[in-house]
Amino acid sequence: MRQVSIIGIGQTEVGEHWDVSLRDLGARAVTAALHDAGIEQADALYVGNMLSGTLGSQEQLATLIADWAGLRGIEAIKAEAACASGAAALRLGIMAVASGAHDLVVVCGVEKMTDLDGSEASAALMTAADAEYEAIHGVPFVSLNAMLMRRYMHEYGVPHEAFAGFPLTAHANGARNPHAMFQKAIDHETFLQARMIADPVNLFDSAPICDGAAAVVLCPAERAREFAGQPVRVAASAVATDAVALHDRQDPLFLSALNLSAGRAYQQAGIGPEQVSFFELHDAFSIIAALSLEACGFAPRGKGTEMAVRGEIGLHGRLPISTMGGLKARGHPVGATGMYQVVEAVLQLRGLAGANQVPNARWGMTQNIGGVGGTAITHIFEKQKD
Amino acid sequence: MRQVSIIGIGQTEVGEHWDVSLRDLGARAVTAALHDAGIEQADALYVGNMLSGTLGSQEQLATLIADWAGLRGIEAIKAEAACASGAAALRLGIMAVASGAHDLVVVCGVEKMTDLDGSEASAALMTAADAEYEAIHGVPFVSLNAMLMRRYMHEYGVPHEAFAGFPLTAHANGARNPHAMFQKAIDHETFLQARMIADPVNLFDSAPICDGAAAVVLCPAERAREFAGQPVRVAASAVATDAVALHDRQDPLFLSALNLSAGRAYQQAGIGPEQVSFFELHDAFSIIAALSLEACGFAPRGKGTEMAVRGEIGLHGRLPISTMGGLKARGHPVGATGMYQVVEAVLQLRGLAGANQVPNARWGMTQNIGGVGGTAITHIFEKQKD
Repeated sequence: MRQVSIIGIGQTEVGEHWDVSLRDLGARAVTAALHDAGIEQADALYVGNMLSGTLGSQEQLATLIADWAGLRGIEAIKAEAACASGAAALRLGIMAVASGAHDLVVVCGVEKMTDLDGSEASAALMTAADAEYEAIHGVPFVSLNAMLMRRYMHEYGVPHEAFAGFPLTAHANGARNPHAMFQKAIDHETFLQARMIADPVNLFDSAPICDGAAAVVLCPAERAREFAGQPVRVAASAVATDAVALHDRQDPLFLSALNLSAGRAYQQAGIGPEQVSFFELHDAFSIIAALSLEACGFAPRGKGTEMAVRGEIGLHGRLPISTMGGLKARGHPVGATGMYQVVEAVLQLRGLAGANQVPNARWGMTQNIGGVGGTAITHIFEKQKD
Repeated sequence: MRQVSIIGIGQTEVGEHWDVSLRDLGARAVTAALHDAGIEQADALYVGNMLSGTLGSQEQLATLIADWAGLRGIEAIKAEAACASGAAALRLGIMAVASGAHDLVVVCGVEKMTDLDGSEASAALMTAADAEYEAIHGVPFVSLNAMLMRRYMHEYGVPHEAFAGFPLTAHANGARNPHAMFQKAIDHETFLQARMIADPVNLFDSAPICDGAAAVVLCPAERAREFAGQPVRVAASAVATDAVALHDRQDPLFLSALNLSAGRAYQQAGIGPEQVSFFELHDAFSIIAALSLEACGFAPRGKGTEMAVRGEIGLHGRLPISTMGGLKARGHPVGATGMYQVVEAVLQLRGLAGANQVPNARWGMTQNIGGVGGTAITHIFEKQKD
């Protein structure tokens, strides 16, 4: 298997892009990534996207974005794994280069969720859950997470306040990220007084509906020095799955797909959780941040929130997370999120994360989740040495 | 790059499966393919599907089918490339094995289109076209093909009757395929008197809306002899794209993505069109069958229909096409079609195509198309010798 490196990155601001079409949003990120790598052409494009069919009446999206980015004719395929679609597309790009099928591959995550009203976006997001056993009962996606959070609080005796550290950290970091949707820090009081969305999930426990696109360019590691960008090596790429419906799982409070995926990634990279310099986790909900830390070996079960309470997840803590704002503050354009995580990890490993730079960042880990942990995709990156 | 072989195949009947859910339909094909290979587990599942989000309110489909097929935990990703989603999933599976990421991979194409009424299916199919420049004008997908057919007839002076050979051949072959939706041959008179759908496209010029699933198991070629199924080698796998909207193309009557994709495939396989034993082409419309033969080097431009008139596309002709009924008679469950083509090619190369066996079949070619030629994915297969 050929080693794979990232040689270019690009991203649009996350927000409400009412004046930009879905294809243009994707093409902007693709073009920016190509420019960063110092190239104009690529052999293939893999696009991560969840909702273009339901919210945009557009499929065959990868072909369309390839054309709009000036790449007509190249291989193009869209990957879907609900909110993990972005990382799923990266996985495909990595296999394309690793197999020798292609040398120069662009991967783009793109989503446009704000053109219709919120109830339509909410209904579309529910396609990430089990249509026949969960969605059919009328439960929206946020409520699945609310049930999980309530169960966690009950089972471990953890108060809602204990989760505050996750949104506080995310918004503190987002405040210094010019691409973030929310560039404003919040304080403890603001969290406590926030409007309830689905008890016990409040406004700051959940990520916003938004638009955005992020992209990277991949090539074989041995060719990475030919290009402009400071190369970052892909040390691990691992996908794992679980039952989609919460009730089908043996233990809903242990997200086994996250555990499996992270375990496979650690093995590929030859490191353990203690060596990870920072972790771009999938904090779509505060409860998922806590469960991610537990499933990936950073905290014992039921103790995920304590890492936040002890200040270990800040930029100078033991394990910085959501370093550019995470899903809550940078924003969560679902199919694009996995690629934002990767672009941010590359910025950290290049030492170009500005005010949000994690000191001595060596191993960066990203984890993108589909549904309430139905699919988990973990990548580990390292600054390329040779 | 590791060589890749197909060691198992599975398919459901094509038809209206109102008593079977989408996930079960997919799981049946996956289970059948695993059984054919003589195994119970796999490392990854790639699912080709176009419409589960719009018609089934279900995304994260690959994860769901993996679970339903007893494969919970494994890597699972869905591929989308409109009606070429099935072959797109195969492309991913091939790269996964070729790269060394996985040894045993299942690829499944699945679609369920008949649970809602036809107008909803028709609207969903239109997401294969350009939403902002074609669909917005209210044109359905069949009309795009009608415009193309009318232009072809005008430009080359070809009468509608000249296309009869395509549906006649497809239905003659479908009549002997127990998995086909329509198992009844039609005669010339029936074609001529058929109801008009979108002038000049009549009922037999277009493929039906239906449900179905087909799957294969892949492994490295050097391991293929360990398993039960008679192995077939993947000699070529190539994806190419074009502008999605017809008006954006330089010459609408030359499907350049098909030409590019076939050209790349011939190069990989080291053969030319004259060596292809049979061709499972994407005959969703009679006009596309003619244009496919021309774009892939089997007929000069404007002469595609003559191959049918001269009887060259029958089972004993120079280039048998649609050997098990094609999209018209076997049926066209869109995201599954590409995988039906592959399962049928494997049956031919194994010599197990029954009454539809192509004599001395050595090189089998399949081509799956997204939109009106926006995406084209060509595979070439050969019976494994060693």
